[in-house]
Amino acid sequence: MQTVVKSPTQTVLIGPDQPFVIIGERINPTGRKKLAAEMQAGDFSRVIQDALAQVRAGAHILDINAGVPSAEPQKLEPQLMVRAVEEVQAITDIPLCIDSSVVPALIAGLKAAKGRPIVNSVTGEEDRLESILPVVAEYNVPVIAISNDESGISYDPKVRFAVAKRIVERAATYGIKPEDILIDPLAMPVGAVNTAGKDLFMMVRMVREELGCNTVCGASNISFGMPNRGLLNATFVAMAIAAGMTCAITNPIESEIRNAIYAADVLMGHDESAMRYLSAMRQLERGDDSSAEDRRAQREARRSARRTERG
Amino acid sequence: MQTVVKSPTQTVLIGPDQPFVIIGERINPTGRKKLAAEMQAGDFSRVIQDALAQVRAGAHILDINAGVPSAEPQKLEPQLMVRAVEEVQAITDIPLCIDSSVVPALIAGLKAAKGRPIVNSVTGEEDRLESILPVVAEYNVPVIAISNDESGISYDPKVRFAVAKRIVERAATYGIKPEDILIDPLAMPVGAVNTAGKDLFMMVRMVREELGCNTVCGASNISFGMPNRGLLNATFVAMAIAAGMTCAITNPIESEIRNAIYAADVLMGHDESAMRYLSAMRQLERGDDSSAEDRRAQREARRSARRTERG
Repeated sequence: MQTVVKSPTQTVLIGPDQPFVIIGERINPTGRKKLAAEMQAGDFSRVIQDALAQVRAGAHILDINAGVPSAEPQKLEPQLMVRAVEEVQAITDIPLCIDSSVVPALIAGLKAAKGRPIVNSVTGEEDRLESILPVVAEYNVPVIAISNDESGISYDPKVRFAVAKRIVERAATYGIKPEDILIDPLAMPVGAVNTAGKDLFMMVRMVREELGCNTVCGASNISFGMPNRGLLNATFVAMAIAAGMTCAITNPIESEIRNAIYAADVLMGHDESAMRYLSAMRQLERGDDSSAEDRRAQREARRSARRTERG
Repeated sequence: MQTVVKSPTQTVLIGPDQPFVIIGERINPTGRKKLAAEMQAGDFSRVIQDALAQVRAGAHILDINAGVPSAEPQKLEPQLMVRAVEEVQAITDIPLCIDSSVVPALIAGLKAAKGRPIVNSVTGEEDRLESILPVVAEYNVPVIAISNDESGISYDPKVRFAVAKRIVERAATYGIKPEDILIDPLAMPVGAVNTAGKDLFMMVRMVREELGCNTVCGASNISFGMPNRGLLNATFVAMAIAAGMTCAITNPIESEIRNAIYAADVLMGHDESAMRYLSAMRQLERGDDSSAEDRRAQREARRSARRTERG
């Protein structure tokens, strides 16, 4: 039940008996106007900076999304995706996750990426299944399957599970195996759905037991609209790991989530002699927390972006 | 499957669909020489202070232990237990947990305590079963059952589960129901037993499914010998709650554990409209964190205790 993800020199295993895998989410122009503008202008310096900061902070895989606002995404996005993949591969050696809703951009990214990257993502929508699963099968790569379909995202976890099951069944007709499908059970905001956490933990167990797939999740949607989101997100990730969740798409620079993941790995027996935990805690104690610097840099960047947008 | 614990005016329900219950552990002279000396000298001011601080910090039940070092514990401890129970009941109204290894002290505490307190504890040792279960049955109170026996504490969770099962079966012969038994699956230090966290989560599930009992646990043994214990303890409690643990004997003044419990309750759907979480976070934001003061007071007390002991 292991999902194998590779760069030319590194192999990352995702599975119930493996350390939890962090897919760094920062390289994504959605909601980051400054980054989008820079990418469109051919300036990839921030992409490189985000890649390095996330690797330093403990990311095992880097998500690459090049979805800038455009009148012709089918034309522009594949170009930007290739450039982003090449820039990132030039400065780091960890595996990638090719993230786009534009099929030609996915294909271009898969061609440019070395090793065995993840495709992010397919949903249960008929046109997505038909256009993306053949690509996944052709390139023989793992794919993230999001448990929504034409009818939207159901509040009912049983409906979301049924969507996940349908995707797995359809994937099988293309020869895609369950271990190459990472199900995203979709965490609802707990402020809107009281049982959001519990529902997700239940789905993670059901996906493992009934579909034999690994699971992936965003770590911050759960806390939308709530105070002290870092605490809720970190607690959520730890509890999801206890339920069997195997990886998350998140920002490793957020130290609360990252530290909870290290602690949870120790408690699951997935961190041999607590080596990773001990090393992370030593870094923290030395005050050698490069991610604090990165956070400051990000805040500064956001502030200057806001100033630019206003001005 | 609810355990009902009562003071004259308050009822605390322990169960899988209830908010997580915190049993405040501070009123215990074990390892607190200054407190032990004061209690022996008839000075219960620190007991009162600890009771108030724990209630302020969010304890739902207060553990009372009067086990001071003594040549005649059978004579001294019952007196101190009664006095401690009376002092605490005079200034707070939350239910109690009568904690002693000395049977006459348990009985004296049960007589003095109003409502329906918990007995802490019985083990699987033959002499403990025979001496404590009749008392539990006579007073019709819930009891904490610790999963060790004559052979000690097994590293093997299956052996610990078997001990828990034997206690539940023996209790039944006294008419004690599973819902009145809180099993402590005993968390090993993860620094010594690599699978300690995982083992405990598994036991919590087995105890619920196969014995129909609620579970209780200390929150800090797991991190013994490790750095950043607060992080490990808080992560551990959240993961145990995800597995179905219903209550912990812990120090509510430790804000990391307490906040993780509040967050975990939200994520389990056990905090209606997140009322408790929101109120706790508002307090934190206002900087109105009385527990920070209490922690400072405790540190100061420890320092002066050390000075006294040395001097």
